Amino acid sequence: MKATIVTVGDEILIGQIIDTNSGVIAKSLDKIGIGVHEMLSITDDKQHILNTLSSLQNKVDVVIITGGLGPTKDDITKKTLCEYFDDQLIINEKVLTHVTQLIEQYFKRPITKLNQDQALVPSKCEVLFNQVGTAPGMWLQKENTVFISLPGVPYEMKYLIENEVIPRLITKYERPFIIHKTILTYGVGESLLAERIETWEDNLPEFIKLAYLPNPGRVRLRLSARGVDENLLKKEISTQVEKLQLIISDCIVGFEEDETIEVVLGKLLTNKKLTISTAESCSGGKIASIITSVSGASNYFKGSIVSYATETKVNVLGISQEIIDEFSVVSKQVAEAMALQSQKIFKTDFAIATTGNAGPDKGDADAEVGTVFIAIATPKGVFSEKFNFGQPREKVIDRTVNQGLEIIYKEILKNY
Amino acid sequence: MKATIVTVGDEILIGQIIDTNSGVIAKSLDKIGIGVHEMLSITDDKQHILNTLSSLQNKVDVVIITGGLGPTKDDITKKTLCEYFDDQLIINEKVLTHVTQLIEQYFKRPITKLNQDQALVPSKCEVLFNQVGTAPGMWLQKENTVFISLPGVPYEMKYLIENEVIPRLITKYERPFIIHKTILTYGVGESLLAERIETWEDNLPEFIKLAYLPNPGRVRLRLSARGVDENLLKKEISTQVEKLQLIISDCIVGFEEDETIEVVLGKLLTNKKLTISTAESCSGGKIASIITSVSGASNYFKGSIVSYATETKVNVLGISQEIIDEFSVVSKQVAEAMALQSQKIFKTDFAIATTGNAGPDKGDADAEVGTVFIAIATPKGVFSEKFNFGQPREKVIDRTVNQGLEIIYKEILKNY
Repeated sequence: MKATIVTVGDEILIGQIIDTNSGVIAKSLDKIGIGVHEMLSITDDKQHILNTLSSLQNKVDVVIITGGLGPTKDDITKKTLCEYFDDQLIINEKVLTHVTQLIEQYFKRPITKLNQDQALVPSKCEVLFNQVGTAPGMWLQKENTVFISLPGVPYEMKYLIENEVIPRLITKYERPFIIHKTILTYGVGESLLAERIETWEDNLPEFIKLAYLPNPGRVRLRLSARGVDENLLKKEISTQVEKLQLIISDCIVGFEEDETIEVVLGKLLTNKKLTISTAESCSGGKIASIITSVSGASNYFKGSIVSYATETKVNVLGISQEIIDEFSVVSKQVAEAMALQSQKIFKTDFAIATTGNAGPDKGDADAEVGTVFIAIATPKGVFSEKFNFGQPREKVIDRTVNQGLEIIYKEILKNY
Repeated sequence: MKATIVTVGDEILIGQIIDTNSGVIAKSLDKIGIGVHEMLSITDDKQHILNTLSSLQNKVDVVIITGGLGPTKDDITKKTLCEYFDDQLIINEKVLTHVTQLIEQYFKRPITKLNQDQALVPSKCEVLFNQVGTAPGMWLQKENTVFISLPGVPYEMKYLIENEVIPRLITKYERPFIIHKTILTYGVGESLLAERIETWEDNLPEFIKLAYLPNPGRVRLRLSARGVDENLLKKEISTQVEKLQLIISDCIVGFEEDETIEVVLGKLLTNKKLTISTAESCSGGKIASIITSVSGASNYFKGSIVSYATETKVNVLGISQEIIDEFSVVSKQVAEAMALQSQKIFKTDFAIATTGNAGPDKGDADAEVGTVFIAIATPKGVFSEKFNFGQPREKVIDRTVNQGLEIIYKEILKNY
């Protein structure tokens, strides 16, 4: 049971847009036991699309294509599919009614010729009705391969994958089980970790694969098991994880079952009925933004003061000018004062604060570029850690955000 | 002159990680006139890698491979390259010294066997020295194709592309020019826009291609010209843009020369010596975070109050409880009061405020899920707009951020 994901669009090949669709599709397929063999991004060129389709036919079971379904002339996927399937376009009345309603509702005008054409589909296709947009998805089969064409707009693609594609694939195919378990480790480099767990790794059963996913400041270990007996897979994975815990108990922070640190942290705070706030300088609001990307964050997140300018730290956050003058704006003392002020102002149980120099310029601080202090205020006090995250700027910001979330997660897990 | 980008790693094919490397590489290649024909993501499987390499040989000029160069057992790119080139691994002394220093500096310990192995490279390769990490890049040639292997860690890959790969490609190949110009439009749907500019589009010269890039709330039009005479390309692009401006002057917001709205806004604020702050509810700090992702943001960005909880709007931002009670927390009145308070607290020229219901739950507000008010405080007063961004949550947040930045950009461009 193999799938290939194909993205059509020059904007991806010139680097104007990052393809996030393939990842979303892959995750959904993986969950139902369909392995993705390859992902491909190709140009908006008829011959290129035709060659790709024919190279995949009978090689994989499912091809999922995104992009090129818009109403404009550069979008040629639908016409090209028609040619590949030796078919013609016909109006789908249900889609036409839906497009008419959408345009009237959002733009308060009648539909144009181009809008109408959105309701054209190949006569041989099964229409995947797109409730959240104007371009319908299409399901076509040629010999042993199903070709599924979806719009490139991420939330439309996602809607169709969840509501139309996955249910049909589940019905149509017998699939194996794929189970992943990701172990979050922290504070040990990839090489040293690998040496510590070498014997364990060498003794893993054939059907379990181990992968190392190094991130700035942490390494995730992913175990993947594949087979027909779901219970056996689950049992063996948990046996192996128990063994691993005995070897590296000092550096396991937690587990990720397809979940990000912000989701895991959110659950922890909700369960323990704890609240959190931030005071951010070098991270510029990104910690708050990532915390609030999780729905239900209003249960535990109160707010943030992004005190980017030094004057803001004094006038808005209430850090004393003397501390800044004595220790500099990028210092342990200022970070800790920021965390305490955030905790006080927002009346929260915990607060994360960041101050640092993300570079490339030195800014208001004397500190070396890459230096960051992260402080955590807790019900029992305050503590902080100093880092040097090097360069470039985006790495410094991302490592600050990751570390901040991980330090607070670990702290709450351990002590509250 | 054609290139293919290959990403190696199961983590991408199961959707655990989004491949951002290919986009960065594509953009760099595009700038020097090398077109990317395809992007491929493949598994960490020896045979899969070998098949991919041989399928690309003599089909494209350059293959850039990222990933699989780590020290652990699941990383097999280097060994597989060795097999493909019928070569053996030898220690590179310069890399070994560098790895030893890095490990001593960051982990305060001697290097392990696995660290040492990072200095092994195929004897036939030209080493691309990785100043910012332990895995070196490799440059190998077979017949008419150059194969370049880079580490998958994004900032290491980027360092090598900029400092080692691009300079070598420029020296080695004669390349055409590729020029893009992206026009930002706002407020008109893709279909209607296409109909308005149809005649102009039909009369574009053969060597200029037009693409529509629809985003929530805006459409970007990208003109791409390719050829050997750079001046001719530039001249023709600007002629076409002038013609286009006459047709849709009402909806052109600006231009993007490979630049995002936050970079363009940053330049505008810097040039005009204006300052900005935010007060964010439903956008949760993301506007601040995006503004501060630009280096030099400290010249114009003072800070933000992320007033996520209603109590924070009252106690920290200073919105009167009466306004909230009378109009509800998601209202024009609250949005405008938030913008004015942010402007006052941070002493800035402009402030952006957001309040809305990103869903999926209703939260503290009565407003329909998807409803967002964006308010802008200016030196002359305050104004706001109401939107319904529908669902899902991430779309509501992203459209809020995009619209907020675009409204303020347009306002400053027009009136200040």
